[in-house]
Amino acid sequence: MSQQQEPKYEGWAALAEDSIEGKLEWQEYKPKPFADDDVEMKIMYCGVCASDLHTMSGGWGRVDYPQVVGHEILGEVIRVGSKVTHVKVGDIAGVGAQSDSCLECGQCRKNREPYCDQGQTGTYAGTYKRDGPGKGAKSYGGYANYHRAPGHFVVKIPDGLDHALAAPMLCGGVTVYSPLTQYGAGKEAKDVGIVGIGGLGHFGLLFAKALGANVTAISHSESKKADAEKMGATRFIATHSGKEDDFKPYARSLDLIICTTNDESMPILGYLSLLRPGGNLILVGAPEKPLPPLPAFPFIMGNVHIGGSAIGSPKLIQEMLELAAKQGVKSWIEKRDIKDANQTVRDMKASKARYRYVLVNTANGGKL
Amino acid sequence: MSQQQEPKYEGWAALAEDSIEGKLEWQEYKPKPFADDDVEMKIMYCGVCASDLHTMSGGWGRVDYPQVVGHEILGEVIRVGSKVTHVKVGDIAGVGAQSDSCLECGQCRKNREPYCDQGQTGTYAGTYKRDGPGKGAKSYGGYANYHRAPGHFVVKIPDGLDHALAAPMLCGGVTVYSPLTQYGAGKEAKDVGIVGIGGLGHFGLLFAKALGANVTAISHSESKKADAEKMGATRFIATHSGKEDDFKPYARSLDLIICTTNDESMPILGYLSLLRPGGNLILVGAPEKPLPPLPAFPFIMGNVHIGGSAIGSPKLIQEMLELAAKQGVKSWIEKRDIKDANQTVRDMKASKARYRYVLVNTANGGKL
Repeated sequence: MSQQQEPKYEGWAALAEDSIEGKLEWQEYKPKPFADDDVEMKIMYCGVCASDLHTMSGGWGRVDYPQVVGHEILGEVIRVGSKVTHVKVGDIAGVGAQSDSCLECGQCRKNREPYCDQGQTGTYAGTYKRDGPGKGAKSYGGYANYHRAPGHFVVKIPDGLDHALAAPMLCGGVTVYSPLTQYGAGKEAKDVGIVGIGGLGHFGLLFAKALGANVTAISHSESKKADAEKMGATRFIATHSGKEDDFKPYARSLDLIICTTNDESMPILGYLSLLRPGGNLILVGAPEKPLPPLPAFPFIMGNVHIGGSAIGSPKLIQEMLELAAKQGVKSWIEKRDIKDANQTVRDMKASKARYRYVLVNTANGGKL
Repeated sequence: MSQQQEPKYEGWAALAEDSIEGKLEWQEYKPKPFADDDVEMKIMYCGVCASDLHTMSGGWGRVDYPQVVGHEILGEVIRVGSKVTHVKVGDIAGVGAQSDSCLECGQCRKNREPYCDQGQTGTYAGTYKRDGPGKGAKSYGGYANYHRAPGHFVVKIPDGLDHALAAPMLCGGVTVYSPLTQYGAGKEAKDVGIVGIGGLGHFGLLFAKALGANVTAISHSESKKADAEKMGATRFIATHSGKEDDFKPYARSLDLIICTTNDESMPILGYLSLLRPGGNLILVGAPEKPLPPLPAFPFIMGNVHIGGSAIGSPKLIQEMLELAAKQGVKSWIEKRDIKDANQTVRDMKASKARYRYVLVNTANGGKL
C-alpha cells in the first residue's frame, strides 16, 4: 500500500486574520507524510464549527498560516496503514477535533486523550509530535477533498446513521456528550440544563434527552423556544426577560448545566443559582475574555462547581454515534456545497446557522 | 425536666463592628426557649474561628448586634429534652457551626444539613425557623458559660479524644474533613494539596494524612514549612518565592486541593495548574471580595473544577471525631482562659494563632 499514488490535496486555505470575512482560498497543500498507523479518506462531509472561525481569525491566539480548518470530517476510507485494524478501505469513517496525542500517558491510557499530558494535536492548526514520518508536520483539516490522520483518532461510522447528520457530531456532538456522560446525565444528574441554543447547545438538548435526562433550555431570549422544545427541552428559561430575577423561580432545580455560550457577559452567578448542592456548571464554549467576576460564597454555601470539558475521546465518539444510531438522534443541519465555503463562513459568523452547517463534497460521494 | 431552673446565661457580647478590636463585653443574655428536642450544656471549651471575627466585624454582611460568637463548643450536658436519645446528662458533647435546619428537605435527609433548601441556622448570628418554642429566637454561640441547641446538631464526643483538642475540630476540622471525604482524599484522590497553613489549613494537613493521602502544603512563603511537615505534608510549594513560575515543576501532580486562604489575591490559576484533569479545587476560606479573574480555557483544556464546601453535617462531625480518636489526630492549639477572650480576638486578628485558640472555662471543668 505504501507505494500507492499520493492523492492531490486541495482545500480552502485561511491565509490571514481576515479569512473570517469569507476570504478563504482554494489551494493545494501537502498533508503529513503517511505513517503505518494512518488512515486516509476522501472527504464527503465536513461540519462547520465555531472553533474554525476562532482559529482562522486568530481570536484564540496566534496562528501559523496557511491553515485549512474543519474538524468534523466524514468520508470514505481510501488507504490504511499496515498497523490499522479497526477500519478498512471502503468503510465510512470520521475524524473529530483531535488528530493525535502521546497515547502513552495516564490520561491517554484512560481514554482521556483530549487531556493528554503532552498536549493534544488538533485536527488543524496543530503539529504532530510522535516519532514517525509525520513528526513535525502541520495538521490540516476538512474544508478539503482528502484527509489523513493517525488511525487511533479515526472512528468507524455505525450503520444506520445518516452520514451528513453524523459529521457535526464528531466535534459538536461529542463536546457536549462528553460532559453529559462524565457528570451522569440521566443517571445521578436527572435534571440537566443547556445554556445557549446554538450549534453546541442543540446537541446538548438532543443528547441530554437521549440519555434520559429532564432537559431545561436556557437562553437569553425566547426566540428559540419552539426549536428547543422540538429538540427535547421540557422547560425553558429566558435569562434576559427584563423581569427582576429570571432565575429565582428555578433555584436549585438542576443537577448539571452544560454552558455552550461564549458570551463573556453571561449571567454566570444566575446559572449557579439553578444548581442543586453538589451540582456542576460545565463550560464547553470558550469566551475570548475572562468570565464575569466570581465571589467565593455561592460556591461555599451551595457546594456547586464550575468546570470545563474539551471535545471527547475516539472511544466516546464511537459510543455517542452508536447511541445516536440506536435512538435516532438527528442533528439539525443545513447542507452547503463545499464550493460555497466562504459564504458559509460569513453566515456562520452572522450566527445564521440553524443549527450546524455541513459542507458537502459531491465529487467524493456527498449528497446535497 | 422541663420545670428545672434556668441557668444564668452570660457571655462575651459583640455590640458593634469595633468588637473585633477586642471590645467584647461580658454580659447576660437570653438563650432560645428550651424545646423538647434541645440539649443544654455547660461550656468547658470553645475554639476561636476566623468566622467569629468576620461576623463580629460585619465583614461578611450586616449583623444584628448584640452577638455572642463561637461555634466550636464543647461541654458537659446538663439537660436534654424528652425527644433526645443520643446524649444524656453528664455526657461530653459538642456543637459546631450549625445549630438548626429544616430537617425535612432533600439535602437534610441526605445528611447534607449545611446545604438545607430552607437555609441553615448558624450557631450564632442566626434565627431559629422551625416550629416550636424557639421559633424566631436568635442563636448565641460559645464565648459563654452555657449553650443550648437542637439535639440533632449536638454530637457526643467519643472516648479517648482530648476535649480541648476536639473543640476546634467541630467547625475548623469538619470544614476541611467534609470536602476531603466528599472528593475522595486517600481513595480516588491520592494526591491532595492544602492551600494556606492556618487554622483550617493545619486541619487540612492533619486529616488529609489521616485519610491516607499524599499531602502537599501550599503557602505563600516557606515560614511554616517545618510545621507543615510535622502535620503530615511530604511536599511543600512556596508560591511567592520570586521564581519565574513556582507552579511549573508541580503541574498536574494533585487530584484535589482544599483552599483555606481568604486572601483575594490568591494565585488561583496557579493552583488550577497543579490539578490533574478531573481534579477539584475546593474553596473553604471565603474572601470578602471576588476571586481573581478566571478565563474559561484552563477549565476546558484541563477538565478542572472550582467548587466550595461549607462546614459539615453532625453525622460527618461524628465520623471525623471517631477517626481522630482512632488515629490520634491532634489539633495544634493554644489554650486561653475565657476571661482573656478580648486579647485572644486581637491575637487571632493579628494571625498569631499557631494554629487554633481554644477558650477554656475552668469554672465548668475546662483545664488550662
